Amino acid sequence: MNFKMITYVIGWLLIFEAIFMTVPVITAICYGETQVWYFIGTAMFCLIAGKLLTLKKRKKTTLYARDGFVIVALSWIVMSIFGAMPLFLSGAIPNYVDALFETVSGFTTTGASILSDVEALPKCMLMWRSFTHWVGGMGVLVFIMAFLPLSGGQNMHIMKAESPGPSVGKLVPRVKTTALLLYSIYFVLTLLQFLLHLFGGMSVFESLNTAFATAGTGGFGIYNTSFGEFSPYNQIVVTVFMVLFSLNFNSYYFILVGKLKEAFNLEIKAFLLIVASSIAVITVNISTMFDSVGDALRHAAFTVGSVVSTTGFSTVDFDLWPELSKVILVMLMFMGACAGSTGGGIKVSRILILFKGVAKEIEMLIHPREIKKIKLDSHPVEHETVRSVNAYMVSYLLIYAISMLLISFDNCDFTTNFTSVVATLNNIGPGLEMVGPTQNFGFFSAGSKLVLIFDMLAGRLELFPMLLLFAPSTWKK
Amino acid sequence: MNFKMITYVIGWLLIFEAIFMTVPVITAICYGETQVWYFIGTAMFCLIAGKLLTLKKRKKTTLYARDGFVIVALSWIVMSIFGAMPLFLSGAIPNYVDALFETVSGFTTTGASILSDVEALPKCMLMWRSFTHWVGGMGVLVFIMAFLPLSGGQNMHIMKAESPGPSVGKLVPRVKTTALLLYSIYFVLTLLQFLLHLFGGMSVFESLNTAFATAGTGGFGIYNTSFGEFSPYNQIVVTVFMVLFSLNFNSYYFILVGKLKEAFNLEIKAFLLIVASSIAVITVNISTMFDSVGDALRHAAFTVGSVVSTTGFSTVDFDLWPELSKVILVMLMFMGACAGSTGGGIKVSRILILFKGVAKEIEMLIHPREIKKIKLDSHPVEHETVRSVNAYMVSYLLIYAISMLLISFDNCDFTTNFTSVVATLNNIGPGLEMVGPTQNFGFFSAGSKLVLIFDMLAGRLELFPMLLLFAPSTWKK
Repeated sequence: MNFKMITYVIGWLLIFEAIFMTVPVITAICYGETQVWYFIGTAMFCLIAGKLLTLKKRKKTTLYARDGFVIVALSWIVMSIFGAMPLFLSGAIPNYVDALFETVSGFTTTGASILSDVEALPKCMLMWRSFTHWVGGMGVLVFIMAFLPLSGGQNMHIMKAESPGPSVGKLVPRVKTTALLLYSIYFVLTLLQFLLHLFGGMSVFESLNTAFATAGTGGFGIYNTSFGEFSPYNQIVVTVFMVLFSLNFNSYYFILVGKLKEAFNLEIKAFLLIVASSIAVITVNISTMFDSVGDALRHAAFTVGSVVSTTGFSTVDFDLWPELSKVILVMLMFMGACAGSTGGGIKVSRILILFKGVAKEIEMLIHPREIKKIKLDSHPVEHETVRSVNAYMVSYLLIYAISMLLISFDNCDFTTNFTSVVATLNNIGPGLEMVGPTQNFGFFSAGSKLVLIFDMLAGRLELFPMLLLFAPSTWKK
Repeated sequence: MNFKMITYVIGWLLIFEAIFMTVPVITAICYGETQVWYFIGTAMFCLIAGKLLTLKKRKKTTLYARDGFVIVALSWIVMSIFGAMPLFLSGAIPNYVDALFETVSGFTTTGASILSDVEALPKCMLMWRSFTHWVGGMGVLVFIMAFLPLSGGQNMHIMKAESPGPSVGKLVPRVKTTALLLYSIYFVLTLLQFLLHLFGGMSVFESLNTAFATAGTGGFGIYNTSFGEFSPYNQIVVTVFMVLFSLNFNSYYFILVGKLKEAFNLEIKAFLLIVASSIAVITVNISTMFDSVGDALRHAAFTVGSVVSTTGFSTVDFDLWPELSKVILVMLMFMGACAGSTGGGIKVSRILILFKGVAKEIEMLIHPREIKKIKLDSHPVEHETVRSVNAYMVSYLLIYAISMLLISFDNCDFTTNFTSVVATLNNIGPGLEMVGPTQNFGFFSAGSKLVLIFDMLAGRLELFPMLLLFAPSTWKK
């Protein structure tokens, strides 16, 4: 384990976190909020601590895969611990575990809140919550890598550990350039959404918060009714962008360079098909609950987009919908978005690989002597990827089971327990029943909140970085 | 596809089913019940149809793996269709889908019932229900194979498809002798339990029904309160035997031949440890609900034994227990019993293989250059077995998701939907909420009942035989 390099990267992370805090500082200054000092204080502390950590000499700069995983896991934990400080110190969230839950929920783009009244928060705090979504969505280390003087191999281990999906491809030979390209696409899409909301009559503050929370597929709202009070136009804009941010960002790059066949790969096609058919079924299922089919369609599309992208915004209380719609939504929660997007969940490409594994197994039972390989987009999938996807799935179920067991000490009902775990582990936000779209996570005990904090981090980092922290051989020389 | 051989085996199956019906016929004669004729009629029909099917010349006797799967799947469907006849024709269950549900639930040793008042059934019908558990528990084709003139290789394909667990070992070189040995152990254990109940003051009828339903880990009760009214002694006997029938029957053989190390393998040890610790935690969790810790322990042990063995008997309504106990029970439902037992579920050995796969994956992330094999009891697990276990797990989740989606059209609550599927797919019987231990499955629509019938068969035959029926290439020449 290369501890010197770990502290070096974490040092840089703290410096960047201090820079990120200029966003809420500017907001506080604009609105004349006195809470500005808590951000300035935390930022100063991060800046000094970060500077001290990066001063140390690094003799050995080699990074192995496990170093990459540990760096990513620890970075996210450290970033959340300090990110929660302004919320806690200002008294906006008087309990530190609650403040940590809220911050982890922000960075991991979960959007699950412990607050029953978000409107009571100062504007700078709301902006910080939304901005953590934007930072966490594309990955903070991916961002830092575009600037840090690390060699390509080192970058790749970190990028692999932080990026969602079963396998990570470099768009261009240099990891740094790939990171810059991805962030540019991310930035342009966010800007576009911001402008469309401004055009739709939302204030700068509202537009900015919404664009940040949608881009990261986070879902923190700035009003108690989430997105229910905004105009149909703005709801439709959010729906479209939630779906856009669920697509693999590589596809946007392929579209830009004119490779349309690569852009519309099997994963994207399968995702869009599932989204469209879910919207259709739910619209029919809920049509009697709304004045017109148009309204039903708009709410169905918004909710499906929100759940499948793991954003978690809501326009209506879908916990009141018929069971068929709810079961479809819970399944979309598990599936989640495409690999290489800002969305969470198991990811469409993993599900495709798993299904193709079953089809292959059945084929082999029928024709035992044929040797087949799983293919995606007519490329054979590496045996290693298949094995890793299977291990991911089992780890997922294992974490799921242990989490449910631990939070069941709080004695909530089965549906609440079941959907709290999917809502956090898949970085969605709301679940059903006591954690439904009009409820919040505040009632959980501190112990359960820590379990769900772990789940949010594990979900965002795709399990293995967090699991590695618990493997004794990670820490051996 | 060797259709001639398929009809030949199914012919023999019908003949054996006719022979099995002598058990309810004798019961009806003992109690002077007029429903005897429905059994005699059905048995006669099965006998004639079976005889006709076995008369046909079989030119090609070769059986491939896929033939084995198809034979097993179709046999179980045919056996259930005819097994339901006496219940339906006599008017005991006036709806045929309900009668089929009850019979499939019997043969698959699920024990889920559509009846709200089992005490209203004639004694011969109750005996038939319990006896279907006994026949289905060890596998009807395993039984037939001990008598049919098939070569060893042909037997093996059928035995593999019908026996539970990730891999099937022959105890002795001849498949026929293995089948006979397994059934002898099964018979002796059943007899022992029967005698212990007689000794405990239960009537011959009660003892026989209970022994059949426990041995098959089925769970059909003969009283509306399931096992609540029986004495603590008899409850303890059932608890012990539910656990005994959850163990791999190969272990009994190893004990008989003095190979104790083989008998107490990792799966058995893990199973007993999980059972003991679950009982301990639940006892503490429910202790305030009962007069004494002894009572709490007895009910906890009974319920854990019932759920983990996938029997489904109950002494109390565990749906009223605290959420922690319920979550533990739901997890035990998923896990199920040992491979090679009469119990259902995912099986302990599969879970061990899956967990070891995750541990291996994590080790490989830390030390990418080391090549490791998964080991069970210091034997390396075949790559094929690991792949098949992973495919099983994914198929399981797939069937789970589709089943939940389909039954959610009935608009029951989430917990009911979720636990109905686990209760049927893992061949347990009761779930929670509307399918809790004091409830029944009668309220589901016919469509949902057919879905759950499929789940019971898929669960008992470990998914692939039933999935193969839907693969187009199964039916190609």
